[in-house]
Amino acid sequence: AKQDSKVAPLTKTELDALVDTTLEAKKNAYCPYSDFEVGAALLTTDGKMYFSCNCENASYGLSICAERSAIFKAVSCGERKFRAISCAGNKRDTQFKSSDPFTTPCGACRQVMMEFPIDWLVLVRPDRSYKITTPKKMIPFAFTPKDVLPPSKL
Amino acid sequence: AKQDSKVAPLTKTELDALVDTTLEAKKNAYCPYSDFEVGAALLTTDGKMYFSCNCENASYGLSICAERSAIFKAVSCGERKFRAISCAGNKRDTQFKSSDPFTTPCGACRQVMMEFPIDWLVLVRPDRSYKITTPKKMIPFAFTPKDVLPPSKL
Amino acid sequence: AKQDSKVAPLTKTELDALVDTTLEAKKNAYCPYSDFEVGAALLTTDGKMYFSCNCENASYGLSICAERSAIFKAVSCGERKFRAISCAGNKRDTQFKSSDPFTTPCGACRQVMMEFPIDWLVLVRPDRSYKITTPKKMIPFAFTPKDVLPPSKL
Amino acid sequence: AKQDSKVAPLTKTELDALVDTTLEAKKNAYCPYSDFEVGAALLTTDGKMYFSCNCENASYGLSICAERSAIFKAVSCGERKFRAISCAGNKRDTQFKSSDPFTTPCGACRQVMMEFPIDWLVLVRPDRSYKITTPKKMIPFAFTPKDVLPPSKL
Ligand SMILES: [Zn+2]
Ligand SMILES: [Zn+2]
Ligand SMILES: [Zn+2]
Ligand SMILES: [Zn+2]
Repeated sequence: AKQDSKVAPLTKTELDALVDTTLEAKKNAYCPYSDFEVGAALLTTDGKMYFSCNCENASYGLSICAERSAIFKAVSCGERKFRAISCAGNKRDTQFKSSDPFTTPCGACRQVMMEFPIDWLVLVRPDRSYKITTPKKMIPFAFTPKDVLPPSKL
Repeated sequence: AKQDSKVAPLTKTELDALVDTTLEAKKNAYCPYSDFEVGAALLTTDGKMYFSCNCENASYGLSICAERSAIFKAVSCGERKFRAISCAGNKRDTQFKSSDPFTTPCGACRQVMMEFPIDWLVLVRPDRSYKITTPKKMIPFAFTPKDVLPPSKL
Repeated sequence: AKQDSKVAPLTKTELDALVDTTLEAKKNAYCPYSDFEVGAALLTTDGKMYFSCNCENASYGLSICAERSAIFKAVSCGERKFRAISCAGNKRDTQFKSSDPFTTPCGACRQVMMEFPIDWLVLVRPDRSYKITTPKKMIPFAFTPKDVLPPSKL
Repeated sequence: AKQDSKVAPLTKTELDALVDTTLEAKKNAYCPYSDFEVGAALLTTDGKMYFSCNCENASYGLSICAERSAIFKAVSCGERKFRAISCAGNKRDTQFKSSDPFTTPCGACRQVMMEFPIDWLVLVRPDRSYKITTPKKMIPFAFTPKDVLPPSKL
C-alpha cells in the first residue's frame, strides 16, 4: 500500500523496531483455547514502544486481542497519539510457509485503533516480511468519537 | 455503492421492509448511558426478517450493538445465511437534519457480519433515506473463520 | 439454594418450561471454535419465554454467550422485567454423566443479568436436573446502574 | 472480609503499594463517555507491580475496564501468578464523601480474574480507605478454564 502523503513514512529503523517487538511480544501469548498466538507493537509519536499479546479466557467472549491490549497498555501510561501499530499472528508450533497470509486485525481492534490517532498499521509475518497500510483503510466510514461525543469533548 | 454482480440486487420490497423494520426496532433501544438509540434488521436468504436494538450496560464494555444483537437472535433461531443487514442510529430526542451522517456499524459488528454470509449492508437514516453497501467493503482483508478453523469445520 | 422469600417461588410449570426451552435452544448453538454448546431461556414477569444459544466468532473476544444473547433478544422486544433465566451447557457430542457439574454463567453474563430485575437463575443439566439460585447470589456486591446513572434515569 | 488462611495475608507494605498505585493509575483513565475514572493495580507473586486504567470507546461495548487492562498488561509481560489486584473508581471531578460506596469490579473483570490465580482483591476508595476480599468470593461457582480445557492444558 502507498503511504499517506500527509504523514511522514515509517523509517527503516521504526519498521525494524516494530517488527522485532511484535514478534518478540507474540511469545507471551496466552492462548490455550485457540493455540493462535498474536503479538502487537505500538509506537508513540514521540518514539516510545509498547507491546502486547492476546490473552484468552474460558468464556471466549472475554478474550482480548494483542492489538487492543497494546493500545490499552499505552493509554494506561498516558499515551494518546501514535505513529504506528503492528501485529503478527500464527497457529502455535506450525512451520511458516511463504504462502501464509498476513494476519489482519479483527474488527474490534480496528474500531479501537480509530479511537486515537494512529498513522500507520503494519502487518507482520513470522519471517519478518511486512505490509504497510493504515487503520483508516481497514475500517472505512468508521463510527468514531465525533459520532457520539459533544464537540467540547473531542 | 454499486451492487455486487454475483448476487441479486435488493428489491424495492426488500429495502422497504428493511428500512421499516430497522426504524421500528430502534424504538426498543435500551441506552440510558449514551442516549444513542440504534435499530437493526436482518433478512435471511429465505425471506425471514429479524430485528434488534442496542442494549447498554453499567459496565460499558458489556453493551451490545443492534447489529450484533440481530445476528445473535437470528442464529439462535437456526439461521446461518443472510440477504441483508441494515442499521440506523441517532441521539435520542434530536430533530433529524438532512445533513446528518449515516450511522455506520462499529468494527465489532463488521467482524461479526463476516462470520456468516450476508450479501448486503443497508445504512438507514431516520427520514428513511438509505445507502447500500456490503459488509465486505466495510471490513476489507477481514480476519475470518478460515484463518482459524480447520477446513473440515468450514 | 433456598428461594428468596420476597418473590414467588418458581412453579413446576415454569421450571418445566425453562428446562425444556433451555435444552431445545442449545441445539442451535454456533460453536465451531469451542465445541461447547450452551442454551438459555428467559421468562418475563408476564409469562413470555425467550430463548437463545451461544454464537462464537473467529475473533474469540466477539463471541457471545447464550445467557446474554437471550437477554438482548428479550430487550429488543421491549421486555425489561424477568421472572427467571436458565442455562445449560456441555461439550458437543459427549455422553452425560451424573457426576458432570452444572454449567454456571460467566461473569459477563452475571453482570448483564444485574442490569434488569431477574428474580431467579436456574442451572440446568442435559438430563433435565436443575438447581435454583439467583443472579444476585452469583455476583455479590455487584456494580450496577445506580453506580453510574443519575437517579433521574433509574 | 477475613483473609483466607491458606495464603499469606497482605502486608502493610503491599497494601500501601496497591493503594498508591491504584489511585495514581486512575489519573490516566480515558473515559470521555462515562466520566467515570477507574484505576487498578496488580501485584505478582514475586513482587512486581502492574497498573492500568479504564479505556472507553465510541462503540461502548469495546470499552475496557481498569482491572482487565491491568491483567492483560501483566500477561503480556509473561506474568501468570498474582498476589493481589486492587481497584478504585469514581465520577470525575466529584468530591469524595465518606458515605461513598466502594467501587466493585464488573462481572467481566471478575471472570478474567478467575483465569489466573490471584490471592486477594482489594477495593480502594479515593481517601485511601480499603476493603480486602478475594476474586473467588466475588464470583462464586465460577465458570473456569477447567470447564473447557482438557486436563493436559491446565
Ligand atoms: Zn482483534
Ligand atoms: Zn457495533
Ligand atoms: Zn457468559
Ligand atoms: Zn470490569
